[in-house]
Amino acid sequence: MKDFQGTPGTLTGLLLRTSQCLFAAGSIASMATTSSFFRITAFCYLMASMALQVIWSFALACLDTYALARKKVLHNPILVSLFVVGDWVTAILSLAAAASSAGVVVLYTGDFGLWKGEECLKYQISVSLAFFSWIMVEISSFIMFWILAAG
Amino acid sequence: MKDFQGTPGTLTGLLLRTSQCLFAAGSIASMATTSSFFRITAFCYLMASMALQVIWSFALACLDTYALARKKVLHNPILVSLFVVGDWVTAILSLAAAASSAGVVVLYTGDFGLWKGEECLKYQISVSLAFFSWIMVEISSFIMFWILAAG
Repeated sequence: MKDFQGTPGTLTGLLLRTSQCLFAAGSIASMATTSSFFRITAFCYLMASMALQVIWSFALACLDTYALARKKVLHNPILVSLFVVGDWVTAILSLAAAASSAGVVVLYTGDFGLWKGEECLKYQISVSLAFFSWIMVEISSFIMFWILAAG
Repeated sequence: MKDFQGTPGTLTGLLLRTSQCLFAAGSIASMATTSSFFRITAFCYLMASMALQVIWSFALACLDTYALARKKVLHNPILVSLFVVGDWVTAILSLAAAASSAGVVVLYTGDFGLWKGEECLKYQISVSLAFFSWIMVEISSFIMFWILAAG
């Protein structure tokens, strides 16, 4: 196992988890305040995916805080394998959700020019935050996979 | 470096590259035969992404064939780093393209029920083949990243 910033139980690891959680929560909040997101499957999928992201990242942020407070090293191979699977699943789901919602938003704002105003802006903010959340979880996934493969 | 099936210069590696290339080519062919894909950004992005996938996978399939014929081992760290970056970029672009197109197709076929018939079927086939291509390139990406991290 290699020990560097971003691995579980480090301050950078905790910051990554917190930012994933906050971006995903922001994405949900922005989408939930629109009046008709539930009519579009891609937006419902984005909500479900971001909810999963919030739960996963929050749980790992708590674990990182515990490890930091007790000065424990979380490099148990079984634990790291679990983190790798969880991170890759949430990363793939987040990217797919963000991209499918972006496809719909671009269709209505760019291609057809039908959506304008505050509602449209909320959709765009939600999709952007989902992409930011995905970037953060992708970084975590690479770090996890690296420590598993190099272990 | 670890040596197992699926790494560059093996028969499984060649099969993975060939299937990526064929699925991506099939996706382009199915989309190109529709009459109005160019009006929708997500579908244009799918075409561009799958074209990149075809070029990348075809180049690596040729390299694998050469390595198999000459019985060479392609585990040079610089070469593997290049494969890792290329694979991850194409994998992320393929998933984003497939998901954004799927978002649009589901919107019109499922949510609004506006698209029916042959044209719609072609869109669905194109998106499905893009997802298959992504699954294959994702497997290659994991293998490449593994041999880089374990090297």
